[in-house]
Amino acid sequence: QETQLNMADLGAPRAEPEPDNRSVYIYDCRPESRESSEREIEISGKDFTQFLQAVRKVGELANGKTLHLLQSVDQELTKATQERINYLPHYHTIVQSGQYEYYASEGQKALPYAFAELIDNALSATSRNPGVRRIDIRLLFDESQGGPAVVVMDNGRGMTSKELNNWAVYRLSKFNRENSTFQSDHSGYVRPTPVPRSLNSDISYFGVGGKQAVFYIGQSVRIISKPVGSPDVHEFVMSKEDFERKEKNKEEIYSGIIRNRKPGDCSHVKVDEERFLQSLILEEEGKDSFTAIVINRIQPEHVTYLRNDFILWTRELAHIYHYYVHGIHGNDLKNEKKADSPSNIDIQICLLERSPRLPKLINLREIDKDMQTLYINSSVAEFEFKASKGSDARVEGLIRYHPFLYDKETYPEDPYNSTPENDDDDCFIFQAEGRGKRPIFECFWNGRLIPYSSVNEFEWCAKPKKMCTVPLECYNRISGVLFANDCFQVSTNKLTFMDLELQLRDKETIFTREQRVKISREFTIWLKECHERFDKQVCFIGYHGTTTRTDV
Amino acid sequence: QETQLNMADLGAPRAEPEPDNRSVYIYDCRPESRESSEREIEISGKDFTQFLQAVRKVGELANGKTLHLLQSVDQELTKATQERINYLPHYHTIVQSGQYEYYASEGQKALPYAFAELIDNALSATSRNPGVRRIDIRLLFDESQGGPAVVVMDNGRGMTSKELNNWAVYRLSKFNRENSTFQSDHSGYVRPTPVPRSLNSDISYFGVGGKQAVFYIGQSVRIISKPVGSPDVHEFVMSKEDFERKEKNKEEIYSGIIRNRKPGDCSHVKVDEERFLQSLILEEEGKDSFTAIVINRIQPEHVTYLRNDFILWTRELAHIYHYYVHGIHGNDLKNEKKADSPSNIDIQICLLERSPRLPKLINLREIDKDMQTLYINSSVAEFEFKASKGSDARVEGLIRYHPFLYDKETYPEDPYNSTPENDDDDCFIFQAEGRGKRPIFECFWNGRLIPYSSVNEFEWCAKPKKMCTVPLECYNRISGVLFANDCFQVSTNKLTFMDLELQLRDKETIFTREQRVKISREFTIWLKECHERFDKQVCFIGYHGTTTRTDV
Ligand SMILES: Nc1ncnc2c1ncn2[C@@H]1O[C@H](COP(=O)(O)OP(=O)(O)OP(=O)(O)O)[C@@H](O)[C@H]1O
Ligand SMILES: Nc1ncnc2c1ncn2[C@@H]1O[C@H](COP(=O)(O)OP(=O)(O)OP(=O)(O)O)[C@@H](O)[C@H]1O
Ligand SMILES: [Mg+2]
Ligand SMILES: [Mg+2]
Repeated sequence: QETQLNMADLGAPRAEPEPDNRSVYIYDCRPESRESSEREIEISGKDFTQFLQAVRKVGELANGKTLHLLQSVDQELTKATQERINYLPHYHTIVQSGQYEYYASEGQKALPYAFAELIDNALSATSRNPGVRRIDIRLLFDESQGGPAVVVMDNGRGMTSKELNNWAVYRLSKFNRENSTFQSDHSGYVRPTPVPRSLNSDISYFGVGGKQAVFYIGQSVRIISKPVGSPDVHEFVMSKEDFERKEKNKEEIYSGIIRNRKPGDCSHVKVDEERFLQSLILEEEGKDSFTAIVINRIQPEHVTYLRNDFILWTRELAHIYHYYVHGIHGNDLKNEKKADSPSNIDIQICLLERSPRLPKLINLREIDKDMQTLYINSSVAEFEFKASKGSDARVEGLIRYHPFLYDKETYPEDPYNSTPENDDDDCFIFQAEGRGKRPIFECFWNGRLIPYSSVNEFEWCAKPKKMCTVPLECYNRISGVLFANDCFQVSTNKLTFMDLELQLRDKETIFTREQRVKISREFTIWLKECHERFDKQVCFIGYHGTTTRTDV
Repeated sequence: QETQLNMADLGAPRAEPEPDNRSVYIYDCRPESRESSEREIEISGKDFTQFLQAVRKVGELANGKTLHLLQSVDQELTKATQERINYLPHYHTIVQSGQYEYYASEGQKALPYAFAELIDNALSATSRNPGVRRIDIRLLFDESQGGPAVVVMDNGRGMTSKELNNWAVYRLSKFNRENSTFQSDHSGYVRPTPVPRSLNSDISYFGVGGKQAVFYIGQSVRIISKPVGSPDVHEFVMSKEDFERKEKNKEEIYSGIIRNRKPGDCSHVKVDEERFLQSLILEEEGKDSFTAIVINRIQPEHVTYLRNDFILWTRELAHIYHYYVHGIHGNDLKNEKKADSPSNIDIQICLLERSPRLPKLINLREIDKDMQTLYINSSVAEFEFKASKGSDARVEGLIRYHPFLYDKETYPEDPYNSTPENDDDDCFIFQAEGRGKRPIFECFWNGRLIPYSSVNEFEWCAKPKKMCTVPLECYNRISGVLFANDCFQVSTNKLTFMDLELQLRDKETIFTREQRVKISREFTIWLKECHERFDKQVCFIGYHGTTTRTDV
């Protein structure tokens, strides 16, 4: 944006008397200039303002730009100058934001974690619903209806047009919104009142999740939302194509249009292109409030994956939201404590294809092969504890016991990692049954799983170095869960905790149970009890020889 | 930005004859309005333009906003309306960009990887230097001189003010710059001509590295740059403070000022605040071109780490840039092949404190405890190969043999992970000596290490399942390196490859050596030879009993 008007000779003071007609030559060296030769400008009798007016005729001067009058192109500046620049983030900031955020570990499929961001938002939006909280994920893969598209819909509080505007602002979060009372350094932020297992539905943090998810899944998004109390629906489209067009036409990149319209009014939809959109809009009528995120131009490999690995990724979602969907006690199929606190959260997934015509429909609550369901239902006892540090940092934890029954360990296999590691070459495994070398704890943040962080063990529940009263293999029969609140930080893609384990290992972190007792002693007693009450292990000792009994 | 002028009664047609004086009441409901009561506006005989003029008196109407005339606050819209919105990314996009990008695995220190981004840029900028390529990292921790500050300086080609402007644009990369010939989808991108081990210094890719690094390290950056051929120096400051001020004053967030000045002119520096800056600017004179990145307001915990763990993080940098610093054959202390291709890259690190007064100075080339140096110097033979897929994707690889000598394996220990895993409880280790369970290959991208990606093994160099001619423990005596070009994608923080291993496992990937021979056979022959020539192993067989010799 630096612009140089190269003046061949700009009226430098001369000794000789001035001639009647003085003029200078001007080269327009601004990048956008198309003139190749110099222009002569008469300057006799002109003051600087008049001179500028003359320059103006050479070419329009844009608002806010800086120009330099130079005598030769490579001359030194006679004094320091300042020039105004603009450095708006490129639109790839939004469009490619998710591309690498969800890279995950090599080869792992990250799509469930992108969906999770949209579910997070829906959970947050429905948190104050008096009745059922409905979250609908629809995969519209019928091309004759204008697919493939992905719709995530919730019956939450919706967004006003101001809030919809804010949705679109990258990195605008609850901490730095205009009307937020807390500073951007989170000072003044009041945490929601603690609830059991931090199931507070307050899973918004960075102001990026929705955008990253949407542009990881596809290349265009339409958000349709009706806030409570408003008679109108607000609609906003953001797409890669749109950005590219605006860039090409030198229009303002981050400027867009919100459409305000009546519910059910689909007069703006091109009939032949997006049929599904029409029926979606027709559904609006009669709804008090809702938000629908409609993603278009889905990456083809995502369509393949979502279709072919339906079981896999829905199971991963059931894993992430296990405690939101099943309530604080989780999916206890023996149903002992479940009825105390039923969940009103319905997360439903629907896959619509051209053929088969029958939609595939599943409610996350029906899934019973996710890891937490397996852990809960193969365990026979729970050991609860709390950890705290400072005033606000809270972790609830529990350890479950998976007994040895008759002829085998009941510690569940991980269905994701069905191929056991081929360790045979290098070592003989003795007590690696049960949990094996897996970490003890899965970790949840504000109630939802952070999939790539786990905590191996704590000192007080680790296999002791010296002999003890409990057989060592019992330490391999425990699994655990940690529920942290958002005092513990997670990465922007919500795949890992920043330093949960480190923080918990800190000397100032205190582990407690109901009463203030020594947790390591308590744990050992509990483990011993579990072993004695639940393990049904037959042990043959003193082998003498084999006797073959002939049939009578 | 939606604004509602709520008209209590806007001249609805009436049946009765019009009275002389007609008027309507207007509520100014725009968020910025301070008026609490309605205003009466006379409308007798006014047309719409005149009416608007009257409204204007109620309050100034800002350019580009959308207003609604509503009869009641919650009335339905009589027709769909559109409203213009802006959604500029929040400045946290830049200021917090690195915060979570470098989270790395829990508890690991990410600072060396932030420095690496700045070194990447300097390598890129100096790639066409005819002489020595100097990259200076200075840690100015003497508070009496205005520290702590971090300076990264290079004698590369520098930036014009246009390029400096571009530096500041988040996500603007070589692929989507205005004058770039290739599309943003990278079509048309011409890869630099292949060079051995992809040491092409072309390590810019996403348009985020510098910004993320700078704001991970501190909260303010000053970039000073002089491009070749320009008599002037360009200077630009970007800081969190600045952004906050602009937000508060409702100024344009992404607008700033580049200062153009003579080299050595430090008249704009506050003398008492940043003394080091003055001497830095005085150094400018006589330099043909350079770039200095001056980072201020360093996070205190970074200062502590950089000071106390100097050896650790400089070693990690030496590891990352091993082949840039030592040339394609690496740091071979026996010096056999090194002289063929000396490196002209000098990466120097200097720690200046108040006390001790003596600066701590190290050239990355002097470091000989980084992993690659250890691998190279404990190995006795190399097996080179290539892998290719499609037309452009290239990987060069090599495997090194670390023999058993007399009484122990020579495979080097990882000095970062000095505590060996406590596996004893669970298994007896037989052949885990040497490499143990570590992956074989470290992976480099355009010549620099991608620290969190490694490749375990390939089929042809893995321990065979059935008996073979080479003792199995020899397979634990190999380490390896892969040099990939940028056909293989890395994450934006350059900590992991997206899918290197997956791509290499692909059936279409072909492994070759000089001639087209079967690589698995070649490898086995090589390994056998290594064993026979280099392993000095004494093996006692047929133990008969212990004889104690009494001293004569
Ligand atoms: N389904 C929804 N219903 C109502 N409001 C929503 C919905 N989805 C998003 N929003 C609003 O849009 C904002 C931006 O969402 P986005 O997911 O991009 O960021 P975030 O949730 O604030 O932070 P994070 O990066 O942690 O996800 C939210 O804070 C919320 O106010
Ligand atoms: N030391 C330097 N000398 C000259 N130009 C530089 C220097 N550092 C940065 N630049 C310019 O600024 C641009 C932006 O740098 P930045 O590191 O932010 O992104 P990038 O290098 O383009 O991509 P990446 O995200 O991969 O680092 C670079 O592309 C380069 O043109
Ligand atoms: Mg969110
Ligand atoms: Mg860079």
